[in-house]
Amino acid sequence: MAGSIFGKHFQISTWGESHGKALGVVIDGCPAGISLSEEDIQKDLDRRKPGQSPFSTPRKESDKVEILSGVFEGKTTGTPISLIVYNTNQRSYDYSEIAKCYRPGHADFTYDEKYGFRDYRGGGRSSGRETTARVAAGAIAKKILAEFGVDIMAYTLSIGPVSIDPAKFKRDEIFNNFLAMPDQEAAEKAAAYLHEIKEREDSAGGMIECVVNGLPSGVGEPVFEKLDAMLGKAILSIGAVKGVEFGSGFNAARMTGWENNDFFQYDEEGHLTKLSNNAGGIVGGISDGFPIVFRAAIKPTSSIHRMQKTVNKAGQNIELQVEGRHDPIIVPRAVIVVEAMTALTLVDYLFERIFSRIDLIKKALL
Amino acid sequence: MAGSIFGKHFQISTWGESHGKALGVVIDGCPAGISLSEEDIQKDLDRRKPGQSPFSTPRKESDKVEILSGVFEGKTTGTPISLIVYNTNQRSYDYSEIAKCYRPGHADFTYDEKYGFRDYRGGGRSSGRETTARVAAGAIAKKILAEFGVDIMAYTLSIGPVSIDPAKFKRDEIFNNFLAMPDQEAAEKAAAYLHEIKEREDSAGGMIECVVNGLPSGVGEPVFEKLDAMLGKAILSIGAVKGVEFGSGFNAARMTGWENNDFFQYDEEGHLTKLSNNAGGIVGGISDGFPIVFRAAIKPTSSIHRMQKTVNKAGQNIELQVEGRHDPIIVPRAVIVVEAMTALTLVDYLFERIFSRIDLIKKALL
Amino acid sequence: MAGSIFGKHFQISTWGESHGKALGVVIDGCPAGISLSEEDIQKDLDRRKPGQSPFSTPRKESDKVEILSGVFEGKTTGTPISLIVYNTNQRSYDYSEIAKCYRPGHADFTYDEKYGFRDYRGGGRSSGRETTARVAAGAIAKKILAEFGVDIMAYTLSIGPVSIDPAKFKRDEIFNNFLAMPDQEAAEKAAAYLHEIKEREDSAGGMIECVVNGLPSGVGEPVFEKLDAMLGKAILSIGAVKGVEFGSGFNAARMTGWENNDFFQYDEEGHLTKLSNNAGGIVGGISDGFPIVFRAAIKPTSSIHRMQKTVNKAGQNIELQVEGRHDPIIVPRAVIVVEAMTALTLVDYLFERIFSRIDLIKKALL
Amino acid sequence: MAGSIFGKHFQISTWGESHGKALGVVIDGCPAGISLSEEDIQKDLDRRKPGQSPFSTPRKESDKVEILSGVFEGKTTGTPISLIVYNTNQRSYDYSEIAKCYRPGHADFTYDEKYGFRDYRGGGRSSGRETTARVAAGAIAKKILAEFGVDIMAYTLSIGPVSIDPAKFKRDEIFNNFLAMPDQEAAEKAAAYLHEIKEREDSAGGMIECVVNGLPSGVGEPVFEKLDAMLGKAILSIGAVKGVEFGSGFNAARMTGWENNDFFQYDEEGHLTKLSNNAGGIVGGISDGFPIVFRAAIKPTSSIHRMQKTVNKAGQNIELQVEGRHDPIIVPRAVIVVEAMTALTLVDYLFERIFSRIDLIKKALL
Repeated sequence: MAGSIFGKHFQISTWGESHGKALGVVIDGCPAGISLSEEDIQKDLDRRKPGQSPFSTPRKESDKVEILSGVFEGKTTGTPISLIVYNTNQRSYDYSEIAKCYRPGHADFTYDEKYGFRDYRGGGRSSGRETTARVAAGAIAKKILAEFGVDIMAYTLSIGPVSIDPAKFKRDEIFNNFLAMPDQEAAEKAAAYLHEIKEREDSAGGMIECVVNGLPSGVGEPVFEKLDAMLGKAILSIGAVKGVEFGSGFNAARMTGWENNDFFQYDEEGHLTKLSNNAGGIVGGISDGFPIVFRAAIKPTSSIHRMQKTVNKAGQNIELQVEGRHDPIIVPRAVIVVEAMTALTLVDYLFERIFSRIDLIKKALL
Repeated sequence: MAGSIFGKHFQISTWGESHGKALGVVIDGCPAGISLSEEDIQKDLDRRKPGQSPFSTPRKESDKVEILSGVFEGKTTGTPISLIVYNTNQRSYDYSEIAKCYRPGHADFTYDEKYGFRDYRGGGRSSGRETTARVAAGAIAKKILAEFGVDIMAYTLSIGPVSIDPAKFKRDEIFNNFLAMPDQEAAEKAAAYLHEIKEREDSAGGMIECVVNGLPSGVGEPVFEKLDAMLGKAILSIGAVKGVEFGSGFNAARMTGWENNDFFQYDEEGHLTKLSNNAGGIVGGISDGFPIVFRAAIKPTSSIHRMQKTVNKAGQNIELQVEGRHDPIIVPRAVIVVEAMTALTLVDYLFERIFSRIDLIKKALL
Repeated sequence: MAGSIFGKHFQISTWGESHGKALGVVIDGCPAGISLSEEDIQKDLDRRKPGQSPFSTPRKESDKVEILSGVFEGKTTGTPISLIVYNTNQRSYDYSEIAKCYRPGHADFTYDEKYGFRDYRGGGRSSGRETTARVAAGAIAKKILAEFGVDIMAYTLSIGPVSIDPAKFKRDEIFNNFLAMPDQEAAEKAAAYLHEIKEREDSAGGMIECVVNGLPSGVGEPVFEKLDAMLGKAILSIGAVKGVEFGSGFNAARMTGWENNDFFQYDEEGHLTKLSNNAGGIVGGISDGFPIVFRAAIKPTSSIHRMQKTVNKAGQNIELQVEGRHDPIIVPRAVIVVEAMTALTLVDYLFERIFSRIDLIKKALL
Repeated sequence: MAGSIFGKHFQISTWGESHGKALGVVIDGCPAGISLSEEDIQKDLDRRKPGQSPFSTPRKESDKVEILSGVFEGKTTGTPISLIVYNTNQRSYDYSEIAKCYRPGHADFTYDEKYGFRDYRGGGRSSGRETTARVAAGAIAKKILAEFGVDIMAYTLSIGPVSIDPAKFKRDEIFNNFLAMPDQEAAEKAAAYLHEIKEREDSAGGMIECVVNGLPSGVGEPVFEKLDAMLGKAILSIGAVKGVEFGSGFNAARMTGWENNDFFQYDEEGHLTKLSNNAGGIVGGISDGFPIVFRAAIKPTSSIHRMQKTVNKAGQNIELQVEGRHDPIIVPRAVIVVEAMTALTLVDYLFERIFSRIDLIKKALL
């Protein structure tokens, strides 16, 4: 109940610090009978792993996942699945400076205020490394959703001033460039921008877009647990996310009802369609069977080598140059984290859909 | 567990449909010893009440709240507080048309898909009227927060193309115009825009900004229950909200680390300050003691008189003109709902701050 | 989160005091599509209603239930069901004495200690009258369970020294005598005992047994949410219950493994049977498809007219004679409360069984 | 949400099977600032460790606990504490027989029914070995409670027909004999009984009593989360527990109100006392400041060498002799598990007491 447990049915409990022995997650509520191997999880972990691009921290971590429980003879047993990833590369480097001051943009100050002291090694629990556990659990959620035909695709929409051109969208391209951009040209422009930012010892932010196909209609709860509210919470829980919007999003504030309403129409084959998807696939908090579309704004990496003003605990104003290994941009590595949080949210509400109707419950039990 | 319960400690359970006998809320977890009267709650309900402006539905509702339990001799007892508001003005009007088709922008279709059928009278549970219960509970949360020096202020930031001018910000003005805008000139421009929109039988959207002063540092939980994630969920759970952003929000995606980081400095008196508040008062999901600032995008009202394309349940494409009494803009009435949801979220996490540290727990119990 | 909310999926939030305006319950998570009327609920309320026997308080309450939301055209909509029962007979009688002292056996002292003050009118929230809301919600849970073939039967097993004779068990008899005993002779003996107890201005306790037939195997969760643990919590949450046991219960402490183990056997038709049911239908916290059997011990009514020693808030030792209208025995009226709490627990875990296996989830959704 | 998570604030998530790589627990919600070492936890684990007495399984397990996160510089950080215990002695022995049949008294059948298949190695998740994680987490809860003066003492009350003599109660004796009995003579009689039971290739059950001193008044919530209901759930969640009773317990069913009510009296020094404690320190679900007293009935170990009747999955009635290493009695090893579950429950409700009153919340925050 202190923030590290997520989910209602497929419930995950994550743990671990940036420079501790290991990180991990315990999943309680994964149904029995799903074939699961470490490879299923590893492939997603490899997507967020550091040290794979000129734009991510050179810190080398194998990030190998180990399944400690909950799987027997290749299948989930329905009991808790415990996953662990050991930290193998915490450079034993001097944190005495950082221990005494507050890095701008980081949670150093707020953790001290909240807990009275903090694990200052690499940010401790507030480090982005914590997302390793989310991605591991999310890989299982994605595997389950795939069995129901639900496909989650996130990608980098923009980096600093460089946005993708929808006309040049290529899904495969997401995996072909370091920046997880589905548009090769934009990726090249963004890379050039990042090289320049790096030289200035600065960092950049960007946007991630996520599209979910195949989610049936009727998923989500009314009032407080609207599907967009729950997805919003999940995405905003990722460090560095400063905003989230669904469908027409912030533009809706400037549109009129006539412009923003999605008109229903039956096509020639009599299938229900919509003439637009400004709703982003969610109306009244419940999925309408059309693609779920949302975007997240990611702030620039807080750690920069450039000299910054800040204070120390001795009550002095100081100038600080943050040492260590940083990503000039974290957006590309956050793409898989967005997919993971989306999957963890959807698997819960997809299952819960059964409880909305007595006929669905009877289908399962009688 | 089906969406109508909100909160961890100050936990509310809301109920009621647009055209049912009544709406209400049960609050479990309100501490004992708080003086509470129906007036304390009524003053907020009066802020969202319909029929008060040329831009809100003429439906007349007294929206008088009644306390049914949990208060004894003017004080909360610590046991559940049950609040009820009777529906007095459900115009007995013909819903047979709406029962057979799906209104664009409304939850008619998604509710049918989820539940198999729906209460089609005025949107049933999906009606904005549901927020009456939120505002009633929120008024109590706001009263508690006030005892801790926490002040919540929400207002209309923009309507369609018209935004307020920060230089002309006047808090009192929020209560002086029909549009809850803290800038009189902007309010007049927006009113003119709305008259035009109304003539075109269309509707408008807008943005709400919320600023929280006096919240101590150290409020919020790490990882999944970051304060911005929880506030985001709360705000996105309000029907018609399509996006939410904190501090520099979506602009952060275009800024650099140097531009976006808030530098700490001690002022002459040795008080800790920040040279900017791009974080919106939340870092690592925990409050830093500076103002909490966020914005929500509200879509234009879905109900418009203008003829729209849609389908009926008989499988036909039809043209629909939505009858009835509608707001051409719901933003001004949503302002108090944003305050309520903010208060309901903050009261939970302010209390929970105690559990973060053994010294705080001892202060209370030993 | 302060004790008045029960359940995981079929989640109820109860409210109301003995001498307040009304009592009620909000049910969130009742599936859509169940036909429901006030009569369905009233018939169970009538079983716990006071003033129906020489052994229950003469306080007259119609206890008429009203459905305020969540039902449309005779069917549940899947949104919150709000039920209310008005208090019509709070005798305006003088509580000034009770306000100043602590009645032995009652929660007067503990409520003052916990909340700092209390609603002293008839026990306020700690009154047994609170169970009205449980029975109302339980009636709906029982109706749902019946659609799955689950039958719950509770009855008075003993009153003071008088126990039923299993050989004379008649289910109909439960409804034929004032004491809800399935054995007419025992009921007559118990009635004689109660008349004597009443003359001594004292009160009696007893035991309730509950048998559940038709619950499928595989219901219940491992480790902390074993079906017996959850039923135990539900039953122990009924005021006056001092103990609960399952199957062979406390006798198991004296038996050997050989005596207590239930041996499986296939009968002639090849159906799986057990040669005994010492487990009470639950093994490892999960139902085995045989009858669930448990017993609860109910303490004697705390309110007695006989003079008792106690203290007042002025720090004095006093003698107290509790005025007012009391049941010399509450066991018979508690029988329906036991059924209600059993139903509320089982409906949750029966539904949750679906989430244990991916094949059941697919049966419902694909 | 599938049974392996316990607690509201000090929330634990346990995992692991009898013959898996390891078992463990993640604790979310442990306050920051508590000094904690592996030794603090190990000393309780050593109390439940197998192979320490002639009456426990000869399976040798070091059961060494390792802290993987949540502790920095000897103090809890307020973030998740992950504890792991490796299984070092899973004898690689032939389970092919057990895989095909159902052991009487074990969860083999119910797990197959619930999950469709099971990890048959030593009972998998249903093994008593799962309690290792409870004891590890409970040790931390006990350490916190000790800082508030709360002392938990559980012991063996009876084994088969042999009960302790209250007149001979010696607390130290609990740690001096293999059976955790506070009465040396009774321990010797019980040992003799167990030797005889062992020779008959049978097993025995018994009772555990738990007494909590120093718990302040006002702990516990009304209605559904009464302190006795929550303790009851916690204790009944321990495998093999068949019943639980508080204070006068099942005897209360035979007592009269006059006999069972605890009369309050002020003593010479003016301290409030009670002339009896039939309530077991809990009235209306809330602690009254007097000792909490409850008892649990433990069934005899299900695994016995003696030949038993059962069935196999091939549909045949068979005779089964359960091989392997079994405890003829598990009561003594369950004593520390009872203490752990009691501590885990009390720490939650002790903390929650703060939320009952606005004055306590202000004491902590203002």
